[in-house]
Amino acid sequence: MTIPAASQDPEETVYVVTPQLIGEVADALRDRDDARARTLIRPLEAPELADLLEALGPDARGDLIRLIRPDFDPELLPELDETVRDEVVAQLPPGELAAAVHELDSDDAVYVVGELEEGQRRAVLDELPAEDRIAVEQGLSYLEYTAGRLMQRELVALPAFWTVGNAIDHMRGESDLPEEFYDIFLVDPRNHPVGTLALSGLVRNRRGVRLSDIMDPDLTVVPVTMDQEELAFLFRQQDLTSAPVVDPDGRLIGVITIDDVVDVIDEEAEDDLMKLGGVNEDDLYRATMATMRARFTWLFVNLWTAVLASLVISQFEATIEKIVALAVLMPIVASMGGNAGTQTLTVAVRALATHELTPANALRIVWKEVLVGGFNGLLFAAIIGMIAWAWFSAPAIGGVIALAMVSNMLIAGFCGIAIPLGLDRIGIDPAVASTVLLTTVTDVIGFFLFLGLATWILI
Amino acid sequence: MTIPAASQDPEETVYVVTPQLIGEVADALRDRDDARARTLIRPLEAPELADLLEALGPDARGDLIRLIRPDFDPELLPELDETVRDEVVAQLPPGELAAAVHELDSDDAVYVVGELEEGQRRAVLDELPAEDRIAVEQGLSYLEYTAGRLMQRELVALPAFWTVGNAIDHMRGESDLPEEFYDIFLVDPRNHPVGTLALSGLVRNRRGVRLSDIMDPDLTVVPVTMDQEELAFLFRQQDLTSAPVVDPDGRLIGVITIDDVVDVIDEEAEDDLMKLGGVNEDDLYRATMATMRARFTWLFVNLWTAVLASLVISQFEATIEKIVALAVLMPIVASMGGNAGTQTLTVAVRALATHELTPANALRIVWKEVLVGGFNGLLFAAIIGMIAWAWFSAPAIGGVIALAMVSNMLIAGFCGIAIPLGLDRIGIDPAVASTVLLTTVTDVIGFFLFLGLATWILI
Repeated sequence: MTIPAASQDPEETVYVVTPQLIGEVADALRDRDDARARTLIRPLEAPELADLLEALGPDARGDLIRLIRPDFDPELLPELDETVRDEVVAQLPPGELAAAVHELDSDDAVYVVGELEEGQRRAVLDELPAEDRIAVEQGLSYLEYTAGRLMQRELVALPAFWTVGNAIDHMRGESDLPEEFYDIFLVDPRNHPVGTLALSGLVRNRRGVRLSDIMDPDLTVVPVTMDQEELAFLFRQQDLTSAPVVDPDGRLIGVITIDDVVDVIDEEAEDDLMKLGGVNEDDLYRATMATMRARFTWLFVNLWTAVLASLVISQFEATIEKIVALAVLMPIVASMGGNAGTQTLTVAVRALATHELTPANALRIVWKEVLVGGFNGLLFAAIIGMIAWAWFSAPAIGGVIALAMVSNMLIAGFCGIAIPLGLDRIGIDPAVASTVLLTTVTDVIGFFLFLGLATWILI
Repeated sequence: MTIPAASQDPEETVYVVTPQLIGEVADALRDRDDARARTLIRPLEAPELADLLEALGPDARGDLIRLIRPDFDPELLPELDETVRDEVVAQLPPGELAAAVHELDSDDAVYVVGELEEGQRRAVLDELPAEDRIAVEQGLSYLEYTAGRLMQRELVALPAFWTVGNAIDHMRGESDLPEEFYDIFLVDPRNHPVGTLALSGLVRNRRGVRLSDIMDPDLTVVPVTMDQEELAFLFRQQDLTSAPVVDPDGRLIGVITIDDVVDVIDEEAEDDLMKLGGVNEDDLYRATMATMRARFTWLFVNLWTAVLASLVISQFEATIEKIVALAVLMPIVASMGGNAGTQTLTVAVRALATHELTPANALRIVWKEVLVGGFNGLLFAAIIGMIAWAWFSAPAIGGVIALAMVSNMLIAGFCGIAIPLGLDRIGIDPAVASTVLLTTVTDVIGFFLFLGLATWILI
């Protein structure tokens, strides 16, 4: 929403791309009423147009892409969801795509080209002016998910010995400045950063003041190879708005700004959420078949977990035949273990991601989780023990399920934290593999304990 | 990490609060070696000290708070996790706490005071200078989680008819400017914002240029009552770095900067993750008993879900007695339904939070999820049907489990999206209640379908 100054209405909603607008655009496209569709989308800026494209169905989306192609806004590309961007990009010939990339900031250009498929990437690079091509190729030479990929090459670096007046005069004369920037970097003659100066520091000082006297010499320097997770941690912890990026020789080669990091923070938390839910990535806009294939793998792994649990149960067929109440009650033990373990697991996975769970406090937290699991296990053992006793008028069944419950919840608490810690230690992403391992443990042990104790005590 | 310019080492890690440091500080505190502890923590800035406090055990934490109290850094307060901040605040008398709050920016001051308990809040407010007290009380008069609570009152607003020279001279003379700021707001005589000007725009223009000629008149104005989720959406969508906050009469009363919004974005994604995992909030630093109590509620609700599923099973005791293989296989149907539903649910909850799932595309997405569930259901029905057939040498059992599987996965796909959509429609947070509702459905229907079909077909 960019409210024109004349019509400021604080009650107006922030969501410009309303269901109503989406419906109207879809109708206009279906009726081939291009003029009406154009009128409807005219007020939209790139991020809003991106939302609209994402919200439309596949057919309407294709029509809209065709409609906007003649005066294509390059800023649309970095705003789009991956799946939808692929559709847009597929409709643009390499020449038009290269022209769009040329208009983007260097970080966005690297991002958009980096997401293209091999052949298309080559074709677009060939169409780019030499200067752009070299810049994009250099950007792509850094590993994905590192500072090198996220950084912007456009920055303002000035000699530290300059004065405020020098700086302001220079910037007034310079046409090649980044469109917006928050900080100025001060460098020594070898182009090593020696300090930063927020623009607000520049404008509040007199012209004669030396930059080196008002700069902040406590630099937070980012090596070009830094992983984006570390970067996000750094920005959050230090409340940074931008940070200089240096090459292995310590020379200033780029800048990372907070808006790039917002995207990383966003992605990371979403990543953990999706992985814990058993989905590779947010597949809202994916086609049905692609979604189905992506989810199949996870379900397939889980099938074998479930079959394993069934194998455990089948060891006790004779017992179940004698006391069928066991079949009725057994899912309770497994399910409570699974739920208790998932609680611990969720906290642990997030704490690992935010670097709050470290070797320094791991032992203490494991111990705490075992205690929590054990205490809650005791409570639920008492509750379910009494329910089972009353239900089947058999105190012994109540005792067996109580024993199984407290043990399984204790083990669930321990595994809920030990599994992600262990996976993290051996370099496997705990968000991906923890849930299935945990469920296997709580199901297998839950069924085994309950049916095993029943066989031992009741038969 | 603030690498001094002299010792820049790009390979140095960003994690200053290493396990080693935490261990050394804990040892020094245990040995009552205050001098050593002081030396160890001297290089730490507020965010790092906050991390250290959070990482220590309760005893060491108490000792460290005692140690830092004499020269307490107010910036520590907004950096701390809630649980740990409560411990710190409990050790500070109201006078010292008020002195610390006085040093903070207005948004941090409102936040810290707002998090205090009623009695303590009153005591601190009484100790604050009148001007601060009024500002904090006014901040607290806005609803929690709205722009009013997040905004900072310190801002730079200038008359739109001024020139670049006027602005720079004014800022050079003004001592009461915010410490750092990115944008200048231009206002009309009634203090209504009419445009913004990034500082980079100010420094690149000549002194004689009128601010109204270079300002950006497309203002994104935030009403003081705007919910922080909408705010986060707005900042992300428009790539804003700051936005003016206006009162109901449209007058400029504050500014929200991107660093406040980063915290909101962070919290939100974490909130959804935690709620889906069945935890109220990140309770890593909570005491064992408090954690236990907080998790008990969720487990208690789930217990009744599990008991309900058991009630369904108990309706088929006679069938299970005859064919005990059913007891062996039945958890597979329920578990696969639960996993497939959770995949859909995770995507849906996240898409609702980011406003990507709206009434405009809901029907299409529901249909897609039913298809995905149905197709995958068919595949897994075939696989599990053959497994069961081979395992128990009974094609009929294979047929029954296949039928139950495809039906339950189809229902799981539908419920995985319909439940969060429905909850959202009636104003209940889908992240909190969706999982338990979904599991109830997939368990109850899974057991009912499998055992019911078996009774009907096999008996």
